[in-house]
Amino acid sequence: MPYVMVQIPRTPAPPSPAPSRSVPTSADVARLAGVSRATVSYVLNNTSAVRISEPTRRRVHEAAKELGYVPHAAARSLRAGHSRMVLIPAPTFPVGPLYHRFLTDLQGALGSLDYTVVQYGTGGPHGDEAARAWAELRPVAVLVPGSGLGPRGVAVLKRSGARAVVTLGPETIEGAHALLMDHDVVGHSAGSHLYDRGRRRIGVVVPQEPGLEAFSAPRLDGVRQSLRGTDATVAELPLPYDEEAAAHLAARWRSLGLDAVFTYNDEYAMLLMRALEDEGVRIPEETAVIGADDLMLGRLLRPRLSTVRLELPSGRELAELVDRAVRKPGTEPETHKVLGATVLHRESS
Amino acid sequence: MPYVMVQIPRTPAPPSPAPSRSVPTSADVARLAGVSRATVSYVLNNTSAVRISEPTRRRVHEAAKELGYVPHAAARSLRAGHSRMVLIPAPTFPVGPLYHRFLTDLQGALGSLDYTVVQYGTGGPHGDEAARAWAELRPVAVLVPGSGLGPRGVAVLKRSGARAVVTLGPETIEGAHALLMDHDVVGHSAGSHLYDRGRRRIGVVVPQEPGLEAFSAPRLDGVRQSLRGTDATVAELPLPYDEEAAAHLAARWRSLGLDAVFTYNDEYAMLLMRALEDEGVRIPEETAVIGADDLMLGRLLRPRLSTVRLELPSGRELAELVDRAVRKPGTEPETHKVLGATVLHRESS
Repeated sequence: MPYVMVQIPRTPAPPSPAPSRSVPTSADVARLAGVSRATVSYVLNNTSAVRISEPTRRRVHEAAKELGYVPHAAARSLRAGHSRMVLIPAPTFPVGPLYHRFLTDLQGALGSLDYTVVQYGTGGPHGDEAARAWAELRPVAVLVPGSGLGPRGVAVLKRSGARAVVTLGPETIEGAHALLMDHDVVGHSAGSHLYDRGRRRIGVVVPQEPGLEAFSAPRLDGVRQSLRGTDATVAELPLPYDEEAAAHLAARWRSLGLDAVFTYNDEYAMLLMRALEDEGVRIPEETAVIGADDLMLGRLLRPRLSTVRLELPSGRELAELVDRAVRKPGTEPETHKVLGATVLHRESS
Repeated sequence: MPYVMVQIPRTPAPPSPAPSRSVPTSADVARLAGVSRATVSYVLNNTSAVRISEPTRRRVHEAAKELGYVPHAAARSLRAGHSRMVLIPAPTFPVGPLYHRFLTDLQGALGSLDYTVVQYGTGGPHGDEAARAWAELRPVAVLVPGSGLGPRGVAVLKRSGARAVVTLGPETIEGAHALLMDHDVVGHSAGSHLYDRGRRRIGVVVPQEPGLEAFSAPRLDGVRQSLRGTDATVAELPLPYDEEAAAHLAARWRSLGLDAVFTYNDEYAMLLMRALEDEGVRIPEETAVIGADDLMLGRLLRPRLSTVRLELPSGRELAELVDRAVRKPGTEPETHKVLGATVLHRESS
């Protein structure tokens, strides 16, 4: 049944409540509760600086509920001079389960510090131009995954009132705090493991999908670093994520004379292992294979796939760094290395 | 190398530009460009209603650039009475590549209609309580994936000024436009396919992960519907996503007397196929297998996995529905069925 977007009739529903004539304001709440607008603001914004009696608080909350009033975050931030909004541009690269968990964790931690996290959609402008679009929302902090933001973008954000700009990527950017996710540690772990297993002619798969260079280049570098000064050699193997390309690489595999391969990640490992198997290349006897990411599929492959597991710090640690930076916007940008890696040795290497 | 969050010293950088004393305002831009604040506002907000000469426009843009001024979206929306912000709460379920592409596409389409798309982070409040948090940002439209929002949440959003609330899920909610993603079509396609292949005792895997019931229940229903009035039977197979549970199910497979299984999706198919293979169950001779989602891994399995491919409408169609709803907030909520499904028959069924 191919897709068609059809409008379908609704089953008759009870009549919806008549729409209110206008959006309720804090003045309406004040009138109904019999208090001043300032009192409404103190109660609904949970200001602890002002003492307000419990019955008054209750009256304000009940009036707000009755009218369906919710505070206006933007108006509040205009009054306060800054918002509690932490803006996180959606990453432009495909997101794996590790990063997804990490982001969920971070958002929870920022939420418990009373920040509102919004992710800014992709598909819009890029680089410093994107920074201007983000600045229009006047976030108090911006957490930028991946690369792409330059020092000019950081300056635009700061001039618009952002107290902290934090990048989460392979490099430091002038003016911004950096959580360095240096993927060379992943390649380094894979290279050392293969060397320790006695392998000396090591291939490294380099995906050809746009957006992955920021990860694949440092992973390749890491393998090179781990083998520097040894008798091992490294061969770069460009590979798009499709079966035909994998079959083509597998067909000339024996002429390459490799005894091991680091496949960038577990999904590329599955792709290449299938193609090598179809060519009769024995794993790990002829060629050892190691992936990265520790996906479930690696445990389901035969031989079971060795992999590099990535580790990220807890969301709480990063949320506290953001909070510290917001409170002391004048301090020097900090740089933290945040990516760890562990080899899980299974049957393929 | 296990993870440690270490602060590392920065390489000395050139001194950063001194932070400006304060955030530049449109008044600063007006002063530098020698025009009124209203003119600045007309130019930077691209108002077509007012004619402004090209040299004046250029002067305003240059002054804004020199001062690093960007308009304040919130202030603008306070003046206009509404924003151009479309808020999309981040889904609480794990997102596959299909949904990710769909969301990117939709965001691009909304962006080209001059909406700003923000995704609201997960990990915060749930249900109608979440609706209050979203309302604080005063979006002009809210697009809610999954279930969880009730009629009260819709009412809160509308009272806060949201002109359109659109749900993207398995059911219609009173007061909201509904893009019905009714997953019964997926199960229906799988069930019909297995029946047409001559199978009569059909198992349906039901994942045990929280958050997946909204998809797994209608998929199971769809299989049942497709076989209603025939001589085929349906058996529900609860299965958590882990190897031990799969091995346990496979060990008692032959006692279940099934000749086919729809595995909910391709990842569960891989999990169960591995376990069945380890038990010596021949696929498809003894048991036909079909997954869903058309992931790459299905093509790499042996036998190659049959699957149900899901289809969603283009982002442009949905963006236009949102835009229409924003322009005519008084009209009756619309319901559209948006999920399509096609069987890709390979070797496993």
